[in-house]
Amino acid sequence: MHIVDIIIKKRNGLELNKDEIEYFINGYVKGDIEEYQASALLMAIYFNGMTDDELFYLTDSMIKSGDTIDLNQITGIKVDKHSTGGVGDKTTLVVGPILASLGIKFAKMSGRGLGHTGGTLDKLESIPGYKTNIPFEDFIKQVNDISISIIGQSMDLVPADKKLYALRDVTGTVESIPLIAASIMSKKLAVSTDIISLDVKVGNGAFMKNIEDAKKLASTMVMLANKFGRTAFATITNMDEPLGEAIGNSLEVIEAINTLNDKGPKDFLELCVDLAGEIIYDANLATSIEMGKELAYEQIKNGKALLKFKECVKAQGGNPKYIDDPSLFKLAKKQLEVKANKEGYIESINALGLGVASSHLGAGREKINDKINHSTGILSKVKVGDMVKVGDVLAVIYSDLNDTSSVIEEVKASYKIGSNKNSIKLIYEVIR
Amino acid sequence: MHIVDIIIKKRNGLELNKDEIEYFINGYVKGDIEEYQASALLMAIYFNGMTDDELFYLTDSMIKSGDTIDLNQITGIKVDKHSTGGVGDKTTLVVGPILASLGIKFAKMSGRGLGHTGGTLDKLESIPGYKTNIPFEDFIKQVNDISISIIGQSMDLVPADKKLYALRDVTGTVESIPLIAASIMSKKLAVSTDIISLDVKVGNGAFMKNIEDAKKLASTMVMLANKFGRTAFATITNMDEPLGEAIGNSLEVIEAINTLNDKGPKDFLELCVDLAGEIIYDANLATSIEMGKELAYEQIKNGKALLKFKECVKAQGGNPKYIDDPSLFKLAKKQLEVKANKEGYIESINALGLGVASSHLGAGREKINDKINHSTGILSKVKVGDMVKVGDVLAVIYSDLNDTSSVIEEVKASYKIGSNKNSIKLIYEVIR
Repeated sequence: MHIVDIIIKKRNGLELNKDEIEYFINGYVKGDIEEYQASALLMAIYFNGMTDDELFYLTDSMIKSGDTIDLNQITGIKVDKHSTGGVGDKTTLVVGPILASLGIKFAKMSGRGLGHTGGTLDKLESIPGYKTNIPFEDFIKQVNDISISIIGQSMDLVPADKKLYALRDVTGTVESIPLIAASIMSKKLAVSTDIISLDVKVGNGAFMKNIEDAKKLASTMVMLANKFGRTAFATITNMDEPLGEAIGNSLEVIEAINTLNDKGPKDFLELCVDLAGEIIYDANLATSIEMGKELAYEQIKNGKALLKFKECVKAQGGNPKYIDDPSLFKLAKKQLEVKANKEGYIESINALGLGVASSHLGAGREKINDKINHSTGILSKVKVGDMVKVGDVLAVIYSDLNDTSSVIEEVKASYKIGSNKNSIKLIYEVIR
Repeated sequence: MHIVDIIIKKRNGLELNKDEIEYFINGYVKGDIEEYQASALLMAIYFNGMTDDELFYLTDSMIKSGDTIDLNQITGIKVDKHSTGGVGDKTTLVVGPILASLGIKFAKMSGRGLGHTGGTLDKLESIPGYKTNIPFEDFIKQVNDISISIIGQSMDLVPADKKLYALRDVTGTVESIPLIAASIMSKKLAVSTDIISLDVKVGNGAFMKNIEDAKKLASTMVMLANKFGRTAFATITNMDEPLGEAIGNSLEVIEAINTLNDKGPKDFLELCVDLAGEIIYDANLATSIEMGKELAYEQIKNGKALLKFKECVKAQGGNPKYIDDPSLFKLAKKQLEVKANKEGYIESINALGLGVASSHLGAGREKINDKINHSTGILSKVKVGDMVKVGDVLAVIYSDLNDTSSVIEEVKASYKIGSNKNSIKLIYEVIR
């Protein structure tokens, strides 16, 4: 087999077979296939796409390139969730406890933030003492004991994806739906869970900018999960404004606690209940999705989800008092209000702009080894369609910077006030 | 400027500007731009093509990557010709002398053969004493004195093409018409000639397999030449059978001499007269192409073209007696006839198969440093559409091999005899 023949076959629009795809992935990971040949093939895939079978073989080869994580020692139904990344997305901190409070096993390996999107591990580390690097056996035991654990992932999962992604990033081949799907799903499928919830964000603060692409990615990922014998659904949700109000680590944990107390922002609560409801239905704890959502919300109203979150924090060394009293969280010294300078409707919010501004406050990373400041961030106090008067607060900036003026400008520029009353639909569609 | 942005722009179907293309070529030649980024861009170009302006800037940047050859010291109209490569193509040896005999300056830098196609330098070196590596000043003087010189090219012409071609070869990006056109034309345009004749071969023995692609390549190359202010025309010619009869170095020189004596194969004579006639017209030595062709044939009939060839051979150290008496050429010891084993029409000839067979006899190179045997080759005695009887000679193999049996099989397999009388049109079209 020759890699040039494989490139030409794909370039000419023919379907690659299992052997050819395995040959490529194995050879590339080993270094037998050159980077310049891989990038040419990736660009051909960008143009010609992949069939379901090709994508299955690609994902399978990628998974086999490294370790896989066996969760079979955990009894019961094991759930994983993934978000393609948005601004203010702290759903894991609410959905996990809801599910665990119903006995669904939430054995979650999370990541850190990069660029304008935050990471669940960074958020949890806002809670003093919370350890994200506990041994794997302790993780398994904790999930069996209290149904929930959220940790970092240290094994060599899907090295093929790391190598491919680094190459795609510098060769203009990131924006390929089959390659995105294989990248996400190889990492999800390398862990032996039963149900996978996928939140595909679409909008100015998301990687996917239009609904058609988001739908295509969503159905591709669900198809892949099904081909691997897993239950999966993908929820296509809006990211044209931040989810909830809070952007930044401590601020987001506080908002999650408030939401578990049924005092959270309406949109964020809606998404958490929706995702949890779908999973509860898939786990056969409800006979309809609607009933699943009711059950999910019930776990908030009866306080069991909050209790579960506290248990989880305690089990991983975090100080549970912070969950009882979020005012304990240390927040940035300066709290600066950004106010409306004219009357009108909030026509649009640049979620990406707010994510980047928050990162400039130290709440996010520009590079992978940057340190972050857990106390800083932004509360976005208005939603698209809200009417504001001159002087109304649009956002509150939590800053430890000496000079916050440029961030204030970034935040200010993220809100467009005008005469059009637009409205945003949070959940576009669920693809199963 | 960032190369990733340039790749994405091209990938998205937008037109690259002069600065972006120069940035790519300069950075790539210097090694600042990685091979894997170049190959991704080449694949994007394969899919999205290039506009005329993009192609002009690409070719211009490629030319500027190395030396250029100034022929301004040569007085009069300077002509270059290029063939995309076929089997039995010895037109340079006839067209050059015809033109030179009319005072048109034929200052030709030729190449060596590789794979199934021969090279003019190898052919000329069949003539004892002929030197292809004379100093540039002597080359200029010879052209000014006798209007013709055919030498090898030793300068660092278009290094960008060498690097790009090597990359295209291993990344499945060879078959891109704009990239092929830029590769050929950068090398032609790096030499300051006035008229460029392009012979685009199409058929089983050529790189271009269908007429549509050949036409597109032809018109792209002519467009490029014109954008650089040169006169050019492209002749699209058939390569579904060898040109003339002779394949192999001495055999081809003998056939060229026979043709200059008006005793050559009909198809080969036709192409030589056609190409020369077009050039004569472009050089304003005839008022119509038809008259140009008449004048070209006249130079054969009156013996002036042959005389000019002999002058050229003598000037470059070759033994002129070989031109007067081609029986002096040393030919291979064994001459083996391949005969028809059934009656019928020659339905098709595999020109590529015969080229490869000739190469197996030592007449061509597999690798760039292989030595060749000037005495070997094949005479293909029939043409598509000819009627043959059992025992009629299809081809004569000139071999110095101990065991020629496998080559005999290759040659035999190259002729298909059947009941259909097909015919081949030698010259499809001339694009100006």
